[in-house]
Amino acid sequence: MSYFGASVEYAIHCLLWLAGPATELASARDLADLQGVSSSFLAKIFPKLERGGIVEATTGIAGGYRLARPAAQITVLDVVDAVEEKEPLFDCQEIRARCALFSGKPPAWATGGTCGIHSVMLRAEAAMRAELARTTIASLGAAVAKKAPTDFQDEVSDWLAERVVARRDARPVIAGRRSGGGRSRIKGR
Amino acid sequence: MSYFGASVEYAIHCLLWLAGPATELASARDLADLQGVSSSFLAKIFPKLERGGIVEATTGIAGGYRLARPAAQITVLDVVDAVEEKEPLFDCQEIRARCALFSGKPPAWATGGTCGIHSVMLRAEAAMRAELARTTIASLGAAVAKKAPTDFQDEVSDWLAERVVARRDARPVIAGRRSGGGRSRIKGR
Repeated sequence: MSYFGASVEYAIHCLLWLAGPATELASARDLADLQGVSSSFLAKIFPKLERGGIVEATTGIAGGYRLARPAAQITVLDVVDAVEEKEPLFDCQEIRARCALFSGKPPAWATGGTCGIHSVMLRAEAAMRAELARTTIASLGAAVAKKAPTDFQDEVSDWLAERVVARRDARPVIAGRRSGGGRSRIKGR
Repeated sequence: MSYFGASVEYAIHCLLWLAGPATELASARDLADLQGVSSSFLAKIFPKLERGGIVEATTGIAGGYRLARPAAQITVLDVVDAVEEKEPLFDCQEIRARCALFSGKPPAWATGGTCGIHSVMLRAEAAMRAELARTTIASLGAAVAKKAPTDFQDEVSDWLAERVVARRDARPVIAGRRSGGGRSRIKGR
């Protein structure tokens, strides 16, 4: 299994949409459908991004998520740390203390300080994290925007606006403008 | 689960013993008992180190493993690559191609080149691997040797020599010097 799971990939893709000019506010469901990914999976990721101070939620029929701070201040490392509680790259078992010659009582010289092998792994992990901290959602978004045709953002805007309209139309009606009882029909599904 | 498993930790610790002056030849069983770790687990790691050109085996009653090249030419990355078939840090699912607006036919601008998110992850993985390639078994061993008391290597030598003697004494006897039939006794166990 790879170290970074689908949560990281999905979260960054969603943030790229939210960072774009056309998508400053979208629900997790909208973003799932827009990207062709599982909405129940995204619904679990967004609360983590919210707790991590990366997105904030607004309520209401046109509500959804937006970035909680500028995209230039959200690094890939921030997203990784928010959505996945990662084990360290290496889990040192301190086997240096178990040498048969120590008879269960390892001397201070053998166990003092961080194990040399563990130290290498910690340096490797730090190098990896430093690289992830070097790229922001803003710079990733700028690269995508450069490739996309000029009218793509308008198309995305229209698509999302239609979703809000569809949600308004599907809203349960209290005082019977629609036949068949909107509220119960929706709730029943 | 951490990205690097116990195989990596155990393998490097074993190589540090084999790189030391006292342990230039030891069996996987000797190294397991010396370090207080599972010998069946080590027995699975050594063939991988052998295939990776890191150790070579000698046979016979005093046989075992030794480094196949100088410790200064074996990096931590070499060991990692030999003993664990690692998945990449990140498994890109190319969800950029699934955008609902593409209706199943993603345009070239959307899918050309490596996905920007994937690229960041590849850079992070390269940084991690570069760091692992920076440290050799020789430099790790030198750091341990600096900390150990001067007579420690002699103690390790003695401990290993006793193991060889014990193996010689336990050897099955073909023409009856010992009562009870050594060969069948050993084989039966």
